[in-house]
Amino acid sequence: MSKIIDGKAVAAAVLEECRKEVEELKSRGVTPGLAVVLVGSDPASKVYVGSKARTCAELGIHSEKIEMPAETTQEELLAVVARLNADPAIHGILVQSPPPPHIDEAAVVRAIDPAKDVDGFHPENVAKLALEDQTGFVPCTPAGCMRLLKEAGVETKGANAVVIGRSMIVGKPMALLLMAKGSDATVTVAHSRSKDLPGICRQADIVVAAVGRPEMVKADWVKDGAVVIDVGINRVEDASKKSGYRLTGDVDYEEVAPKCAAITPVPGGVGPMTIAMLMKNTLISARRTL
Amino acid sequence: MSKIIDGKAVAAAVLEECRKEVEELKSRGVTPGLAVVLVGSDPASKVYVGSKARTCAELGIHSEKIEMPAETTQEELLAVVARLNADPAIHGILVQSPPPPHIDEAAVVRAIDPAKDVDGFHPENVAKLALEDQTGFVPCTPAGCMRLLKEAGVETKGANAVVIGRSMIVGKPMALLLMAKGSDATVTVAHSRSKDLPGICRQADIVVAAVGRPEMVKADWVKDGAVVIDVGINRVEDASKKSGYRLTGDVDYEEVAPKCAAITPVPGGVGPMTIAMLMKNTLISARRTL
Repeated sequence: MSKIIDGKAVAAAVLEECRKEVEELKSRGVTPGLAVVLVGSDPASKVYVGSKARTCAELGIHSEKIEMPAETTQEELLAVVARLNADPAIHGILVQSPPPPHIDEAAVVRAIDPAKDVDGFHPENVAKLALEDQTGFVPCTPAGCMRLLKEAGVETKGANAVVIGRSMIVGKPMALLLMAKGSDATVTVAHSRSKDLPGICRQADIVVAAVGRPEMVKADWVKDGAVVIDVGINRVEDASKKSGYRLTGDVDYEEVAPKCAAITPVPGGVGPMTIAMLMKNTLISARRTL
Repeated sequence: MSKIIDGKAVAAAVLEECRKEVEELKSRGVTPGLAVVLVGSDPASKVYVGSKARTCAELGIHSEKIEMPAETTQEELLAVVARLNADPAIHGILVQSPPPPHIDEAAVVRAIDPAKDVDGFHPENVAKLALEDQTGFVPCTPAGCMRLLKEAGVETKGANAVVIGRSMIVGKPMALLLMAKGSDATVTVAHSRSKDLPGICRQADIVVAAVGRPEMVKADWVKDGAVVIDVGINRVEDASKKSGYRLTGDVDYEEVAPKCAAITPVPGGVGPMTIAMLMKNTLISARRTL
């Protein structure tokens, strides 16, 4: 019987820590502030931005939601970023991804003050992660995965961890976090071009699936007693649902869960952690201004 | 019978490419320039710095060797770096490692103009490597290892590569290069804390040993037909030698070589590549000023 890692509960605990920290920061004269910039009207992005603003409000974090039309130019967006960089009330800046295709997203990320880059995507923060320099920001989703492993009591030292996916949003930072001193896992980064992915996975004490393929990881990919962190959030058609679809991870949960020592469900696993770690990063940034 | 990857010959070919490129750059009005700064009088460092300057001279690269006393202050060193950053005749700057203990080496590396950081250790270049952005500089030793794999005709796509060692000089950049799009290896980073290192190694199609332990990798660590890249250069006592020591890699060459499809010897494997790739990086930098 596997232990279900309850991402909702862990995220709630992180948010509770955040609430206390906001109070303390306020008592010391600093109200943490997060700015979220949305260009265009992608419905999913609107939902994400809305829930970030709402979470800020719940915690007492000042938030600024800047909605710009889809035809916003690169220059207009960079001007907003520059204003937020200079605004002492703002400790975290996030430009919701993906922006419209005419925007050079990498250039926008580089324009954000690294000290306010709470997404952890600025090259300076990427380098700090690789260099194991604790003064940067760790991207929210892998930071959330690490916290889930910790809360579930999973020993990473000497463990064989397999990360499926090599993106800079999840796969690579997750690998760097797992191999860093203190975590000390032996880390394999596998991906769509890997040969015998099932065989590679079967050797893992910890599997992190971040590849974006619904239910790709099957029971025979996972050894008995492994820990599985499922980062995938995929929509698959499901005629039995009112909406016509259901959400599923990169792991075939029904098949895999019975074999695991612990597993994150989708939804309710990694998902809720991302926003909680964003709040945490915003508070880390605010604290650094003390 | 294993194929010996002749690092001396490949390095010579790289240097020949460099020589031609220097000519072409000069014909276009640019004389490439490399500045090497040595603080203190560590004998090994003196040898390295000397051979870098000599290689520059052989290729027609302008070189500046700046030797500073061991009691040089951080400020004095940073002033030299600032002068070199501003000098249009200098395209590459390298501060020989390790500096004396009172010097903050990381701060010195950060002070080097990333566009002249031909060692590839500046955080901006670290980030570019992780982000697969080709506009940076790749650290010389892992770049040399990649070149050796290419020259030896080793297919990295889908191969299982095990990198032993997680330093930012070799292990991590090597892992990032091997997993990058185009290389497409499945990469495992193992280290001193890994459990069952022999078992992990045995699954590798490509082993890169960069851990600094003489002859650690034994025959039963390597599967038949694997390719072995030995980055280690260790001195071990040897009474039969006049000097009282011999150089050896991280791999037990005598034992391992007969099992391999290809292997680099020590010396004469990875070693000569490092300086060749430094020259290459200096020319890349000079070309970017055209």
